[in-house]
Amino acid sequence: MKIIIIGLGLIGGSIAKALSSSQDYEILAFDSNQNSIKNALDNQSIQGSLHSLDDLENSEYEDSVVIIATPPSATDDILKSLDFIFNSSVTITDTTSTKSSLNKTLQEFNFPKNIVFSHPVAGSHLSGEKNSAADLFNEKSTILSYHDSVGSQHVDRVTNLWKTLGSNITVLDAELHDKIFAYSSHLPHVAAYALLNTLKELEQDNLSDFSGGGLGEFLRLASSSPKMWGDIFSMNEKNIALAIDDLINNLIILKDKIGNDPKTLQTFLGELKDFKESNY
Amino acid sequence: MKIIIIGLGLIGGSIAKALSSSQDYEILAFDSNQNSIKNALDNQSIQGSLHSLDDLENSEYEDSVVIIATPPSATDDILKSLDFIFNSSVTITDTTSTKSSLNKTLQEFNFPKNIVFSHPVAGSHLSGEKNSAADLFNEKSTILSYHDSVGSQHVDRVTNLWKTLGSNITVLDAELHDKIFAYSSHLPHVAAYALLNTLKELEQDNLSDFSGGGLGEFLRLASSSPKMWGDIFSMNEKNIALAIDDLINNLIILKDKIGNDPKTLQTFLGELKDFKESNY
Repeated sequence: MKIIIIGLGLIGGSIAKALSSSQDYEILAFDSNQNSIKNALDNQSIQGSLHSLDDLENSEYEDSVVIIATPPSATDDILKSLDFIFNSSVTITDTTSTKSSLNKTLQEFNFPKNIVFSHPVAGSHLSGEKNSAADLFNEKSTILSYHDSVGSQHVDRVTNLWKTLGSNITVLDAELHDKIFAYSSHLPHVAAYALLNTLKELEQDNLSDFSGGGLGEFLRLASSSPKMWGDIFSMNEKNIALAIDDLINNLIILKDKIGNDPKTLQTFLGELKDFKESNY
Repeated sequence: MKIIIIGLGLIGGSIAKALSSSQDYEILAFDSNQNSIKNALDNQSIQGSLHSLDDLENSEYEDSVVIIATPPSATDDILKSLDFIFNSSVTITDTTSTKSSLNKTLQEFNFPKNIVFSHPVAGSHLSGEKNSAADLFNEKSTILSYHDSVGSQHVDRVTNLWKTLGSNITVLDAELHDKIFAYSSHLPHVAAYALLNTLKELEQDNLSDFSGGGLGEFLRLASSSPKMWGDIFSMNEKNIALAIDDLINNLIILKDKIGNDPKTLQTFLGELKDFKESNY
């Protein structure tokens, strides 16, 4: 089966590396960055490259899988540019962290029957093909979102692809996906950035000497690509705004409890410790 | 030299384990929990125990070091109960994360010349003597705070003790200590608890499947002892309230930026990434 990866960065490069060990796949890539293409050809994680996405109309690409693994803000435009293979035998998927805006595009095109969205919950604070790794998706979650009318062969192809990569699959409606991720993933990143700005404004030298373990790991969330996170925040703005409001409310609640009865505070912290240990 | 550890928990137990490998120290402990004493005697991290703190008046304890390693809320009372050895040849220190309230006690007693506060910036989400470790303080910061009038032999003893334990020493005024730690350490813990409560309120199953790496590490801050963190929050309430207000302001700033120009947002996130990488 042909796999065409559009965008050979951390995610696309890692998919290529992971699949290249199998004889079942012929892996081709499309990227404007010729260094990434050359690297991937050199390390044999891809077998060739496409010069133009228009090539996908050729019959040799029938029944292949196209994976859009570009930065979030580019994904929607690329998806639209592939309209000539909507409802064809080619399966189209993506790797983006937000789904509602992509889902609007599907709606415009009356829900093409060959598009299954993917969100691999995997990444790194490093980016680019040079940092890609074959085991990036191993034992991680991948969320699939697709319309009821999508053909089961397309769902099966995308499901099998991520299973081959070692992922555990969850299916979520696109709108629910974005609501949940606003809290589970985007809000922690917002909190890391806001905490960093609070620490930055302190203008105190050697601040890390005054922090225990755990903080550095958390702040690493803010070491990811600013372009990617800017895109994610902008594309999931409304859900994230609600999540930020909830976090602010909880900070105010905690501030109140700190200023009041120590026993009540301690019970509250104990309940949160229990929740943490049951869930993370 | 005799070392008397009052409170044989994670911190006290770790000090005992680390010093017990040296012939220079005779390590004695005082703890109401006889299991902790028995454990430490069995694994030879202490050589004996005190039945009463009143024993410290005996001449055999001259020139020894007393380390108060109890939970923060108990430290002040124990410090006061040692008033009979204030201004003696015995050096008194502690291991508490907040200093302002202890400093008020010093003021009441007109700044005894043998008290040097210590704050080892080391810990674990696990607590108790059974989780203590000889290398807990190795290559970690320890902050010393003491009044100008303290005798240099006492400062030297406490400094050497922490150097023996592998710590890097910083000296900070008690009030400044509490201001800095409200931001560098206490606020990240507040943020972890507030984020946990926000996630808890979502009542969504399998939330951790929808979070990338880093979050679990961060939330581990909220797995520490609720008693200890309740104490720390209560004892540094005013500074922490200011820090929480600053974090809330920064969340509002970030929310605004997410709702506005994507380029400006991206530049802002890039600056925070740079700050993170230069400082953590």
